[in-house]
Amino acid sequence: MTLDEAPAQAGPLAPSQAGPLAWLADHAEARRAAGLRRELRPRTAGRPASDAVRVDLAGNDYLGLGRHPAVVAAAVRAVRDWGAGSTGSRLVTGSTTLHTDLEQALAAHMGFAAALVFSSGYTANLGVLTALAGPGDLIVSDALNHASIVDACRLSRAQVVITPHGETAAVAAALGAGGWRRAIVVTESVFSADGDAADLLALHDTARAHGALLVVDEAHGLGVVGPGGGGAVHAAGLAAEPDVVATATLSKALGGLGGAVLGSTALRDHLVDTARSFIFDTGLAPANVGAALAALDQLRAQPELAETVRAHARHLAELTGAPTPAGAVVSVILGEPETALAAAAACRASGVAVGCFRPPTVPAGTSRLRVAARADLTATDLAQVREAFAAAGILARVP
Amino acid sequence: MTLDEAPAQAGPLAPSQAGPLAWLADHAEARRAAGLRRELRPRTAGRPASDAVRVDLAGNDYLGLGRHPAVVAAAVRAVRDWGAGSTGSRLVTGSTTLHTDLEQALAAHMGFAAALVFSSGYTANLGVLTALAGPGDLIVSDALNHASIVDACRLSRAQVVITPHGETAAVAAALGAGGWRRAIVVTESVFSADGDAADLLALHDTARAHGALLVVDEAHGLGVVGPGGGGAVHAAGLAAEPDVVATATLSKALGGLGGAVLGSTALRDHLVDTARSFIFDTGLAPANVGAALAALDQLRAQPELAETVRAHARHLAELTGAPTPAGAVVSVILGEPETALAAAAACRASGVAVGCFRPPTVPAGTSRLRVAARADLTATDLAQVREAFAAAGILARVP
Ligand SMILES: Cc1ncc(COP(=O)(O)O)c(C=O)c1O
Ligand SMILES: Cc1ncc(COP(=O)(O)O)c(C=O)c1O
Repeated sequence: MTLDEAPAQAGPLAPSQAGPLAWLADHAEARRAAGLRRELRPRTAGRPASDAVRVDLAGNDYLGLGRHPAVVAAAVRAVRDWGAGSTGSRLVTGSTTLHTDLEQALAAHMGFAAALVFSSGYTANLGVLTALAGPGDLIVSDALNHASIVDACRLSRAQVVITPHGETAAVAAALGAGGWRRAIVVTESVFSADGDAADLLALHDTARAHGALLVVDEAHGLGVVGPGGGGAVHAAGLAAEPDVVATATLSKALGGLGGAVLGSTALRDHLVDTARSFIFDTGLAPANVGAALAALDQLRAQPELAETVRAHARHLAELTGAPTPAGAVVSVILGEPETALAAAAACRASGVAVGCFRPPTVPAGTSRLRVAARADLTATDLAQVREAFAAAGILARVP
Repeated sequence: MTLDEAPAQAGPLAPSQAGPLAWLADHAEARRAAGLRRELRPRTAGRPASDAVRVDLAGNDYLGLGRHPAVVAAAVRAVRDWGAGSTGSRLVTGSTTLHTDLEQALAAHMGFAAALVFSSGYTANLGVLTALAGPGDLIVSDALNHASIVDACRLSRAQVVITPHGETAAVAAALGAGGWRRAIVVTESVFSADGDAADLLALHDTARAHGALLVVDEAHGLGVVGPGGGGAVHAAGLAAEPDVVATATLSKALGGLGGAVLGSTALRDHLVDTARSFIFDTGLAPANVGAALAALDQLRAQPELAETVRAHARHLAELTGAPTPAGAVVSVILGEPETALAAAAACRASGVAVGCFRPPTVPAGTSRLRVAARADLTATDLAQVREAFAAAGILARVP
């Protein structure tokens, strides 16, 4: 609106005046025309994505812990003992001894000195990056990093350099250009969409050579990578380094909801004092905290779960000819959105649910199936998956 | 680092080299010296902030619904039926029929056509403002708006004008200055820290006169304000207007965890397609969804709960001489941080937990007790509160 346009008169909007959200209809139409409308398909109780689905390779409950009886029982106990909510922000009334127990167990499992639980992996990423970087600082972020990391970079107001996926030389160049007060290199350990691994040792060497901090998002590493699923940072021997911080989510291999930041006790104290998405957010609810704690117990009791899910993922990758996955996620790149959608529909028609990623979630021309392995797949499941892949035309012709 | 400074050599950090987080110690010391260190005080099972506390006026479970047997039972049922987590983002596997039921119930209760559930009130605010505003747009935000709204404004990359608290004329001036493509006026309905109400009708008139959208955060309005706790927007008759959107949290009067955006179905569709903190975040867990649904049922069955908590809040305000509260929150401004801390400690010593807000959460010189009324306070509770306020020296000398 320019100054010489008179503002509309106050008063009721006539039916012909659609108001300030009228543009939503045009935008929706443009997305529809581009095949980018998205639809929520609610599951019915206890089932995968629809009643016809027997094998769920679309979800992130990689170890099946979300439905483990001990995990369910712990969530039930927590609700009964503490109520449905934490009743306030962590600094007022929202911290319980259950939160503290979970923080200690998570830190121990991932090899760090301390952990701080957030309400989600999303808010954990926002919290740590905005608390550690600001104007005058530099964040070097991999081009395939998750949306929550991208948003955290933006929100921090630091200078942000996006480096091509996996190119450590580009990270070194960005750091070497100087002009920053403090610098952070941020990466996922196992990438959410491609399923490949970051070279953490190379990134850490590069970060250290420049006095930068390395922040690793273990959303898809925790419970899957390393002995007992302790994560990629722990497996690389980096968890006790003073220049390494990790984030994690409780919503994937642990089967629940919530997030965490892992580092030194000084880092934890700093976040308690300054991380806005920690301070000004309601504490994670007791049921979620209790469930995550019990899931970690299961991971300790059955350290083989992590190796099992990785073996299943390698098997699924071999079936389709996809690159060897670093964790549970197999990425079957098919090209155009329609091709990927058709393959996903064919799998579903054969009783197997898989994820389907299209632009803008992934780059144009790389529409794909995202197939998430599970530790609890049986031989029957795997036979059905093989049939579904054949029906979808994605079974590799192994020579 | 400037270009002519050589980067540190890669290799192990000597103990004397503290690494890129060494600055944390200095910053912690500065906060300690300024009295701004914060400490987590975990509650033990089933109790308010400590064993000595008998009356909890610090939490946000205003109606006591978080521990209501029907709410606890619904959370337990949801965990048993669905597992501990939603297993994925809402668009992949993380939507259940329970989410849809909650969305319909919330929309109906608050008078809107549609609702979309997020994992928190924080991510709901981030999602709606970033999906509706961008570069070239204007957001006019009240100076006392919550941190999640402030972060949402920043993340949107829109131009942001902060207006003095409650000054509608300043909102009109900001909108009238023009230069924007689309504009949003954003406010809380009942302010979190001060407990006062926004003048929604005046803000809506102003927004409409300029063709702007009004976004109202009902975090402290839902369950507390209006008939049956339908919220301030509904009570003002604005919920069906095409230029009004609301956000809410499930973590205060509903006693649980999660957040929501309320508006038209076109808005809901737009958020499903474009709101990053919705698309790229794990769906709220079944236990939290089930609990919120049961809490809404209770609110419908006991519409008097909202009036009861407001009456208790007015009573607590009268005891202390604080301004008449609009919702459940009574703000007793005492001035310096030490004064507020001492009063909070005295209340606690008398068995009553209250919140204590100091800078930077509130402006310098306005450190205060934040006293949250509850619907379930008994006459015995109120007598104990009166004694505690007397011991803390904050009992008003009513003439
Ligand atoms: C790499 C990565 N980081 C962070 C998140 C966010 O975690 P949450 O869903 O717990 O918010 C996700 C997935 O949602 C993810 O894939
Ligand atoms: C006004 C307001 N908006 C949003 C929030 C965030 O809600 P949640 O704690 O559910 O993330 C809060 C409180 O935490 C709040 O007081």
